Amino acid sequence: MALNSLGRLIPDTFAGRMLLPYSDPWSLQPHTQRSTRPTKRIAHDGNKILAGIREAIIASGLKDGMTISTHHSLRNGDQLLNQIVHEIDDLGIRDIKIASSSVHPVHAEIIPAIRKGVITGLECGVNGLIGELISRGELICPVIVRSHGGRARALITGEVPVDVAFLAAPCCDEYGNFNGFSGPSACGSLGYAKVDALHARTVIAVTDNLVPYPAVPVGIPQTVVDYVVPVESLGDPAKIVSTTTRITTDPIGLQIAKYAALVIESSGLLKDGFSFQTGTGGISLAVADHVRSLMRKGNIKGSFGCGGITGYFVDMLEEGLFQALLDVQCFDLKAVESIARNRNHQEISATMYANPFNSGAVVNRLDCVILSATEVDVDFNVNVNTESNGYLLHNTGGHSDTAAGAKLAIIVAPSIRGRLPIIRDSVTTITTPGETVDVVVTERGIAVNSKHPELKAELIRRRAPVKDIRELRDEIYALTGVPRPLEFEDDVVGLVEYRDGSIIDVIRKVKE
Amino acid sequence: MALNSLGRLIPDTFAGRMLLPYSDPWSLQPHTQRSTRPTKRIAHDGNKILAGIREAIIASGLKDGMTISTHHSLRNGDQLLNQIVHEIDDLGIRDIKIASSSVHPVHAEIIPAIRKGVITGLECGVNGLIGELISRGELICPVIVRSHGGRARALITGEVPVDVAFLAAPCCDEYGNFNGFSGPSACGSLGYAKVDALHARTVIAVTDNLVPYPAVPVGIPQTVVDYVVPVESLGDPAKIVSTTTRITTDPIGLQIAKYAALVIESSGLLKDGFSFQTGTGGISLAVADHVRSLMRKGNIKGSFGCGGITGYFVDMLEEGLFQALLDVQCFDLKAVESIARNRNHQEISATMYANPFNSGAVVNRLDCVILSATEVDVDFNVNVNTESNGYLLHNTGGHSDTAAGAKLAIIVAPSIRGRLPIIRDSVTTITTPGETVDVVVTERGIAVNSKHPELKAELIRRRAPVKDIRELRDEIYALTGVPRPLEFEDDVVGLVEYRDGSIIDVIRKVKE
Repeated sequence: MALNSLGRLIPDTFAGRMLLPYSDPWSLQPHTQRSTRPTKRIAHDGNKILAGIREAIIASGLKDGMTISTHHSLRNGDQLLNQIVHEIDDLGIRDIKIASSSVHPVHAEIIPAIRKGVITGLECGVNGLIGELISRGELICPVIVRSHGGRARALITGEVPVDVAFLAAPCCDEYGNFNGFSGPSACGSLGYAKVDALHARTVIAVTDNLVPYPAVPVGIPQTVVDYVVPVESLGDPAKIVSTTTRITTDPIGLQIAKYAALVIESSGLLKDGFSFQTGTGGISLAVADHVRSLMRKGNIKGSFGCGGITGYFVDMLEEGLFQALLDVQCFDLKAVESIARNRNHQEISATMYANPFNSGAVVNRLDCVILSATEVDVDFNVNVNTESNGYLLHNTGGHSDTAAGAKLAIIVAPSIRGRLPIIRDSVTTITTPGETVDVVVTERGIAVNSKHPELKAELIRRRAPVKDIRELRDEIYALTGVPRPLEFEDDVVGLVEYRDGSIIDVIRKVKE
Repeated sequence: MALNSLGRLIPDTFAGRMLLPYSDPWSLQPHTQRSTRPTKRIAHDGNKILAGIREAIIASGLKDGMTISTHHSLRNGDQLLNQIVHEIDDLGIRDIKIASSSVHPVHAEIIPAIRKGVITGLECGVNGLIGELISRGELICPVIVRSHGGRARALITGEVPVDVAFLAAPCCDEYGNFNGFSGPSACGSLGYAKVDALHARTVIAVTDNLVPYPAVPVGIPQTVVDYVVPVESLGDPAKIVSTTTRITTDPIGLQIAKYAALVIESSGLLKDGFSFQTGTGGISLAVADHVRSLMRKGNIKGSFGCGGITGYFVDMLEEGLFQALLDVQCFDLKAVESIARNRNHQEISATMYANPFNSGAVVNRLDCVILSATEVDVDFNVNVNTESNGYLLHNTGGHSDTAAGAKLAIIVAPSIRGRLPIIRDSVTTITTPGETVDVVVTERGIAVNSKHPELKAELIRRRAPVKDIRELRDEIYALTGVPRPLEFEDDVVGLVEYRDGSIIDVIRKVKE
């Protein structure tokens, strides 16, 4: 056991792995070679088509103890992972680790397979019930939560050796070229899958839309795809992309967005070449709307919009407010349509988006990112993984990656959620270290990290409600009361890995 | 010493490397891991811009005995390799190997550096004077000629470990994203450079056109580019792409093209889904013109055109005769303009184009390729590397790759060139094994490889001038006389490596 630099107690090992406690966002250097895999040769007149998922599992040579992956671009519409786990179980294969880019509520279907020992580890964050059950000790399945950039790093360095990647392929030819641009499961960018395609030992494209060769534009090429499996359906297209991302109408949310926009305006970053990322939340989109107005008014030509892309950013691209969109994941149908049409709406891989261990990720070039939080502490550390009940319910996504990369990482959150204070002495889980968080914006005021005295002064000059973060906490505690500390068992059920591979926090079993 | 399966005497070693004699086009299997390199981390606010080539060489850590590469998409307009070699010499670095994708006549400028021991090996084919001097023993510099696919294989398997790749970047941002679509040195596809970008230990983008971040579409991403060097000029744009590819007007060439088109028509391949590659030669283009007419007439919707792309193929794409173009290299300005505009004009890497050791190259999907020859023997073996004077003057390009991949590899050549017979008992050098060559077309008749009795019968039925290849040889010898065998010294000055890494032939010093 050792305390990491944020005071979290980190065990020496977890699930058989030696752990390195988190120290700081910048100094850890890689010491490994890029992961490799055997070079292959296929018969020059060979056929890659297999009859189904089961045949693909057999062809891949999947064995007890191995690791599989899928990508999460189909989100809560995905049925592929469920089908794969079902077939693995049926084939009598056990002790499989899942290293998908994310697991969603729809994958609660694999819970029986976890109980049965078919699945014995999650090398990825989980959204929803599986995480809750693991947190409560009702499901034994070591889980390692990684950011998007951290996952790319882990696959590329070989920290997570993926034996077989099953990649949902919305538009695919029989020789394995595929993209996400069309078909019933069109998801747009295949940013996460690109990493698996290059680093998994065996790559299987699973498609519900087999098109004549060649499937162009080629997102993932035939050269790295070993088998192609046509299936009836990859899942529920209606749940793949949300068509309902829209600006909040909640007055508290609108107030927060207004303050956040004021922070951006005061930062001096909003000028030609401005780069920007928001999420899909209603507050984020309201901030984007303010930024759009400011850019129009100032005749500002931005550089790029980044991250999960929404139709909002597509509008800004097409209006000329951004020169390009750098898209690791499309968040709505408008983004999917745009990436297939706009040549400057660029699909990027997760390593290009956010991996700290390459020759430079896109997040390093971000001026401003708008991020959410379930909790923030008085040192600006942010939790997005657990809720205040201690349950692991959310993935990290690009949170810690963009916070580290961006010049200005702004957390937007209501001060109180479900009668619980968002700003507090200590967060349940640290996802993103406070040293990478610049400003916290609530409807009750704006807290500026002490490393930005000039921004703070400028905000005060503009009569913004700047408050010390402790002052803000006290004000909120006065309404909610001091939150009762959660009680945990000693058992560590999961890790929160920082993007560089060090352990920033652990998930402990909740005492109930 | 050992005889390979084509009867060529192959030494056991060359330039310190153990050699494997060629056996057949299909059976050799890879036994290596994909080459790897150290993972890196750059400062998140780091700057990649260096002041010049010299600074880049220093920053790369280039040392005596290492290997460098460039790509040849700027062809005979390239000045980058000359500049690099000049600076390497000036820095006192010696014993450097060049593993560029090709070396052109313009690079004769490096001959003094070869004489001086700055450059001590060419891990690539050469076009022009350097090869001639090596063949004559006037320049000591072991040369290993590889096909485009073979070079990709050699970099990926680590047979050729490239220490520093200097990649000409026609449209590049300061963080290293680049493409070949615009700027004074626009060359279109960066198909060859893509392999170096992923497998060289250090990657340097050299650009005469620094654009605001991000340079989209991203051909080669920032994640693999270590340094960016802005320079005044990469070379002579006028020589980068030829604007003069046009159909032959020579009656012999037109006759050959007509016969070749008849072969294609008779093959049964010319139907929906047809895929096709030609070179830039006037005869090739005349064949393409016939094929276009036949496709129009038959209302045939082809699958893809491939290889080095000309405006001719762009027209066929835009006319709907092909569904896509798969482009490893643009051969003219029209192709450059098209790849920047047409989403189904797809840039592909050299490994995707032609590497035999991956999960499937594009050449495997080719129906028909039109290829040239300097000589063909009675077993259909083809020489494109040397001329009948024994001098190494030409690179292999995709010759042996496409011949192996395509269902129908047609050699088009005049029967006599410079009073020398093209079809002969034995070729000076074997580039492409006869077992991968299907038909040889000359103006005096068509020779069909015995593995295609049905095609032969169909051609006879259509009253085509089908002749046994020995009959054709005799007919030509009757005009030219039997060619006097060239005399060679025992000294091996170069290797012709087959695409799988085995040695299909050697280049010996010409006795003069």
